[in-house]
Amino acid sequence: MVHTLQSFIGGRWQGKEAANALHSALDNRVIYHTHAEQIDFAEAVHYGRKTGIPGLMKLDFQTRAQRLKALAMYLMERKEELYAISHLTGATRPDSWVDVEGGIGTLFAYASMGSRELPSSNVLHEGPAMALGKRGGFSGTHILVPRGGIAVHINAFNFPIWGLLEKFAPSFLAAMPCIGKPASATSYLTEALIRMINDSGLLPEGSLQLVIGSTGDLLDRLGGADVVTFTGSADTAAKLRSNRNLIANSVPFTAEADSLNCAILAPDVTPDDPEFDLFVKEVQREMTTKAGQKCTAVRRIIVPRDRADAVAEKLRERLAKVVVGDPSVEGVRMGALASKDQQRDVAERVAQLAQGNEILFGGAGVLKLVGQGVENGAFFSPTLLLCRDALSNDAVHNVEAFGPVSTMMTYDTIDEALELAARGKGSLVSSLITKDPAIAAYAVPIAAASHGRVHVLDREAAVDSTGHGSPLPQLKHGGPGRAGGGEELGGIRAVRHFLQRAAVQGSPTMLTAIIGEYVRGGAVKESDIHPFRKCFEDLEIGDSLLTHRRTVSEADIVNFGGISGDFFYMHFDEIAAKDTQFGKRIAHGYFVLSAAAGLFVSPAPGPVLANYGLDNLRFITPVAIGDTIRARLTCKRKVDRNRTDDKGRGQGVVAWDVQVTNQNDELVASYDILTLVSKRA
Amino acid sequence: MVHTLQSFIGGRWQGKEAANALHSALDNRVIYHTHAEQIDFAEAVHYGRKTGIPGLMKLDFQTRAQRLKALAMYLMERKEELYAISHLTGATRPDSWVDVEGGIGTLFAYASMGSRELPSSNVLHEGPAMALGKRGGFSGTHILVPRGGIAVHINAFNFPIWGLLEKFAPSFLAAMPCIGKPASATSYLTEALIRMINDSGLLPEGSLQLVIGSTGDLLDRLGGADVVTFTGSADTAAKLRSNRNLIANSVPFTAEADSLNCAILAPDVTPDDPEFDLFVKEVQREMTTKAGQKCTAVRRIIVPRDRADAVAEKLRERLAKVVVGDPSVEGVRMGALASKDQQRDVAERVAQLAQGNEILFGGAGVLKLVGQGVENGAFFSPTLLLCRDALSNDAVHNVEAFGPVSTMMTYDTIDEALELAARGKGSLVSSLITKDPAIAAYAVPIAAASHGRVHVLDREAAVDSTGHGSPLPQLKHGGPGRAGGGEELGGIRAVRHFLQRAAVQGSPTMLTAIIGEYVRGGAVKESDIHPFRKCFEDLEIGDSLLTHRRTVSEADIVNFGGISGDFFYMHFDEIAAKDTQFGKRIAHGYFVLSAAAGLFVSPAPGPVLANYGLDNLRFITPVAIGDTIRARLTCKRKVDRNRTDDKGRGQGVVAWDVQVTNQNDELVASYDILTLVSKRA
Repeated sequence: MVHTLQSFIGGRWQGKEAANALHSALDNRVIYHTHAEQIDFAEAVHYGRKTGIPGLMKLDFQTRAQRLKALAMYLMERKEELYAISHLTGATRPDSWVDVEGGIGTLFAYASMGSRELPSSNVLHEGPAMALGKRGGFSGTHILVPRGGIAVHINAFNFPIWGLLEKFAPSFLAAMPCIGKPASATSYLTEALIRMINDSGLLPEGSLQLVIGSTGDLLDRLGGADVVTFTGSADTAAKLRSNRNLIANSVPFTAEADSLNCAILAPDVTPDDPEFDLFVKEVQREMTTKAGQKCTAVRRIIVPRDRADAVAEKLRERLAKVVVGDPSVEGVRMGALASKDQQRDVAERVAQLAQGNEILFGGAGVLKLVGQGVENGAFFSPTLLLCRDALSNDAVHNVEAFGPVSTMMTYDTIDEALELAARGKGSLVSSLITKDPAIAAYAVPIAAASHGRVHVLDREAAVDSTGHGSPLPQLKHGGPGRAGGGEELGGIRAVRHFLQRAAVQGSPTMLTAIIGEYVRGGAVKESDIHPFRKCFEDLEIGDSLLTHRRTVSEADIVNFGGISGDFFYMHFDEIAAKDTQFGKRIAHGYFVLSAAAGLFVSPAPGPVLANYGLDNLRFITPVAIGDTIRARLTCKRKVDRNRTDDKGRGQGVVAWDVQVTNQNDELVASYDILTLVSKRA
Repeated sequence: MVHTLQSFIGGRWQGKEAANALHSALDNRVIYHTHAEQIDFAEAVHYGRKTGIPGLMKLDFQTRAQRLKALAMYLMERKEELYAISHLTGATRPDSWVDVEGGIGTLFAYASMGSRELPSSNVLHEGPAMALGKRGGFSGTHILVPRGGIAVHINAFNFPIWGLLEKFAPSFLAAMPCIGKPASATSYLTEALIRMINDSGLLPEGSLQLVIGSTGDLLDRLGGADVVTFTGSADTAAKLRSNRNLIANSVPFTAEADSLNCAILAPDVTPDDPEFDLFVKEVQREMTTKAGQKCTAVRRIIVPRDRADAVAEKLRERLAKVVVGDPSVEGVRMGALASKDQQRDVAERVAQLAQGNEILFGGAGVLKLVGQGVENGAFFSPTLLLCRDALSNDAVHNVEAFGPVSTMMTYDTIDEALELAARGKGSLVSSLITKDPAIAAYAVPIAAASHGRVHVLDREAAVDSTGHGSPLPQLKHGGPGRAGGGEELGGIRAVRHFLQRAAVQGSPTMLTAIIGEYVRGGAVKESDIHPFRKCFEDLEIGDSLLTHRRTVSEADIVNFGGISGDFFYMHFDEIAAKDTQFGKRIAHGYFVLSAAAGLFVSPAPGPVLANYGLDNLRFITPVAIGDTIRARLTCKRKVDRNRTDDKGRGQGVVAWDVQVTNQNDELVASYDILTLVSKRA
């Protein structure tokens, strides 16, 4: 009995009648069907807008980050169920690891980055606020807010789990309900994931819908608040991007498409260097991992002309050792392509690439397979081609065989190597293997103009390198031109892509209220209670203390020099100090900082647990002997990460604005201090 | 003799034969012709790529910022020539100020931001770099580099100078040669500007080309490294954005299009509040400045139902006082629309808006004009409409009369006001006039989802407010949806839009070389000379000093408390300190900072002129009595702003990485210090 996959739309699993057959990559038997019923996309969009958005907006950035973490933990406990299904896509265990644990790991990473970098509200301040007038009445800054729309994520067949989760994580943090549309060929794995997520009960209703089959008229129903992301072929990207409705409503469209990524062996590396072996190993791994079905795989191997033979020899040796077959058999290092369609497609493209070029290894139909009953599987041999004149060959820079296929090409100068790299017309990633920092410094900025990521490999990096082919949550994924021009991942920037940025202008008092962060010049709240004696919950943005004063004497400078050991001439050498811009001895900046702490400290134990950091310190007016300073300390920002200390007591992060002024009300020093403040017992 | 305008392409002024007539807005006489000759856009693109890019890349961010400043000064000295021509567009002197001095001011602003925030190289580091492995061998970060392409800037007729300069300034900083294409109607003013810029000789050859007339096949010749920006109608934006070549090559396309901006009078404002008058004044000004031909003008006036009569009365009073006619006549407050075509277009749209709505003031054909021979000018009366049921009227949210025309509409609750605002389906700007920070805090994040900028006005802001309609270089300009979905300006972010972002991964040593900034873990250069004794030119990134050690004693804590006045219990109360996470007394964080300075200071006068700031200080491991600390000081970043001190001696900014460690090599404190370092005498 073959299971019919279902879409999850409007809060219900939909679809009963079988439509298209989906096949196991390993033996081509039918394992699932898509469903025949049409999806009502009006319902899907309405459900996202009317149920999904309100549910997500009841949470804030911090609580959504917590949900992501809980979801990641839930899925990690059940990962073996996903591995079992992933096997049917032709993936080895390490291949599946990238998809399954790479996907779940991305949830963990976004949970963690969200908790560290996002506020406990739904307004993300992108400061600093700046004065826009001379009298202090008008300031400006930027905020990022949830767009009030839905995100449609259209994915490729190669990463049915990671592909969805890497887009879902940042869009969920941004409070966008998602509609995921996996490529049909491997949509059974995505369906299993969504069932698992659904069972967890961890997401607000309407956060995530699933489309099995076609997107129908979905894109025609979107508006300017919505977002579409796409991973797949450049042709499909162009077709979707041309959608009249998307264009008319300026719907943001992010594409991650074809890419003829390269690895460059720099001219300084000789066969005796460890970097030479690192290069060969990296290329072989990128050719064969996931049977080469990665958007980031190395398609072009760019080597110095006089190293080509040595590289080819080593590479053939390694490729010959790659055992291909059923990944459940021990020793098998490479599995199948995702489908027979892919197998045909790769064979056709290899035929195109072979015109005028030499096949050094592999090719269609030369494969010995390991395993039972895999004759009808979608296997393809690792295939290495050699192009002797890559500057005058277009195919090697344009034809992507989405399988274990790569073309080696040669260069004479590093500029020629970079020119070849750029012939890809925009790629996701390039690797440069060199031991010379000067070559990296020259080549990488040039390569960066046409590659979304540049991976530099040497013996120092090799101990930790995550490899050419691995997009990381912290780093941008996506390249210009042919690669689609999109940006995904890259830390919290990915969340910003799903938010709407707005400039905000107004009085400092208004801006303080809007962004939830004290803006200088805004009204402060002076109170009888020292702000350091208030618990986290009781502190309000703008709570402020203007301290008593302190006159700085020569004795302070002398004593501070004695304790710190800092006898810099500006503080201690009357003669040399005369020649400075200040014309006389001045107090140590760090003395001013320390004295300010002495002015605003509240010595007895209280809610402030630690001053763990300080940001944006600027010394503005020097303090001379006889000057009298004071400090204003104002509660600037509060973040509730819902954390507790060792004793289970809640605590939050509080940043304080500090302004130290002198007897003329001139600003002497300006900075933020960061503290942990406990909640009520 | 009517002058024929010329295009500036391939380094030559081109065009002789007259084609289309351009008319004075004031009296409709023919004042210029466009040229009839076809432009060879292959030449234009080739010239930009082969001459423009190399010339720009010979400079760096800092030197390009200096060129911008010099250009701004050059143009400011010749501004009256531009004012004289601007008069022909129908603009009053204040209208022209926005275009002429607003445009030149934007050059000044980008010169200044560039100098403050960009490096003296062509690699902009977007850090921080982060470790990507456990063993410290592999780190990642992001860089932004020149794209190696050209920028095509297509502009609207209303701001022939500002419109080009606000796009040119950031793209020039980003090392992109520009091809400017002004709207034909007022292209004579842009042509005059480009002639002036050309005469200045301040820009590298090929930096700026000008197209008079159609863009022909220009867009079909662009690639993924190029960028197109567009300001104009949504229809034209959609047409250009659908260009097959732009889509196929993922050419970034930034649009700033139609927008039905609104001003909301909040429910808390009564006719007795100063905010009430501020609202009326702001709306009137936005309706009539530039005869309402601003993308940011107020098209929808959203007021509480029970304030509608009071607003209407005051607004009519003010509109009645607006004298319309030849701006050269004293007392004239509003000039003409840019052309008779615009006049017809506005009249048609007012007729559409008037269906079912009431005209409270003005309308087509009710105008008394001041001035000689202006009967044939493109004038239009300030026109105020009233829509009594805006929730069920589509036209008022969709039809933009690009003239001195605005529609008042009423609401019952603030949510209804926000719903009306959002009916514009994405606008450039909304204003909220309120005296209540709570209303602003509630409404602005909601409005921000559909507006590129939100301007909050109250009595505090009024003293400095730059107004609803003014995009500022520091703040984002551009809105979602109907407004085109683009982002312009917004500080240095605008420069980033014209650069290519790439993730970079590698060993800390390689990253240091690539980004020109020391990355922790990278190789350092220990030398016999203390790094503080090296001049700016002699310092190298990675120059490093590991200091002698210092054992921290109880006496240090006691003495530091005495000098700072900081007797916090963690340092002084043995009993309470037992209950902290550390379990014992610890040294002051600021003592550690001060002692570290004492360890690495070089007391005699030398090249280091000042320590003016400190960033990213984090206290990581506490220092207990008996711990022994030392510091590592490493040259992290150098920026040469080509500045000199009072005595004419050159100086540069140097940031130093500081790591304070204890006897177990644990990191105690981590921060950057910022210094000014003089150049060789």
